[in-house]
Amino acid sequence: MASNDIFTPTETVITPEAMLEHWQGHRRLTRHVIEAFPEDKLFSYSIGGMRSFSELAMEMIGMTAPGINGIVTGQWQTTDQLEHHTGKPGPATKAALLERWDDITAEIDRLWQEIPPNRFIERDLAFGQYEGTINSLLFYFIDNEIHHRGQGYVYLRSLGIEPPAFYNRD
Amino acid sequence: MASNDIFTPTETVITPEAMLEHWQGHRRLTRHVIEAFPEDKLFSYSIGGMRSFSELAMEMIGMTAPGINGIVTGQWQTTDQLEHHTGKPGPATKAALLERWDDITAEIDRLWQEIPPNRFIERDLAFGQYEGTINSLLFYFIDNEIHHRGQGYVYLRSLGIEPPAFYNRD
Repeated sequence: MASNDIFTPTETVITPEAMLEHWQGHRRLTRHVIEAFPEDKLFSYSIGGMRSFSELAMEMIGMTAPGINGIVTGQWQTTDQLEHHTGKPGPATKAALLERWDDITAEIDRLWQEIPPNRFIERDLAFGQYEGTINSLLFYFIDNEIHHRGQGYVYLRSLGIEPPAFYNRD
Repeated sequence: MASNDIFTPTETVITPEAMLEHWQGHRRLTRHVIEAFPEDKLFSYSIGGMRSFSELAMEMIGMTAPGINGIVTGQWQTTDQLEHHTGKPGPATKAALLERWDDITAEIDRLWQEIPPNRFIERDLAFGQYEGTINSLLFYFIDNEIHHRGQGYVYLRSLGIEPPAFYNRD
């Protein structure tokens, strides 16, 4: 069996190209979850004093859009500049929320191609306060989306609605 | 800006060493979520006809333990051999569930060191039916844990219990 010393810094767990597809697959599933909510429940329904799924989706949007920009450019908004922290109202309809979602999907595809070589293992200070490697910040965006989307599944189930299959990334 | 051609197959999004730490960080958080449940609610409470958090944790265990073994050896149990599909009762107390959790944590640390070079980008047929690259299978195990753990957060909130902070991986 291989020993520890086979793990050079260039050993690939996942290529940037596959990582982009992995992320966009998750984004497609989250889009299906937004679609699965009845219009009114999307903005109003919650359990245990938590946020509505539209608010959770706006957190994903508010983190991801400036996040991919920061990954590429090294320029970060501060947390109080983030869309979901400004107090400004977000999209008021499911259609408007989905349109915003789709704009960011396209922006990620576009900006991903501009990520400098070896950027993923660099350290940076995201949003003026979160220090870490770029890959750890990227995983945080994705994992936070999976986390909150899983909560949306409970909302849907408790509304008697079958959520999209977790493994479906089409 | 860099163009597409900088992405060689060996460009590193994340090293195997950092990936292990990322995974184990998630496992530590999930362990805290198991701990946060009152003993009886862990095995009985759910929302919307879903499984209890102990059952969700057993799915994580039942996928992860043979999963890391398959990643290392290429030998996979079939899905009907998986612990959570056999119908055999799992751990009946929180302490027993946590002990099982900790055993697998140690097993992952041990087996991870034996993953052959370039294994992550190989394709395999996991559990006799899921075809994909090893990295996609690994992400499936982790993402499935994040997904179900997020559901556990809703259970806890609806029980009036503050869950551990999502960003806490200590």
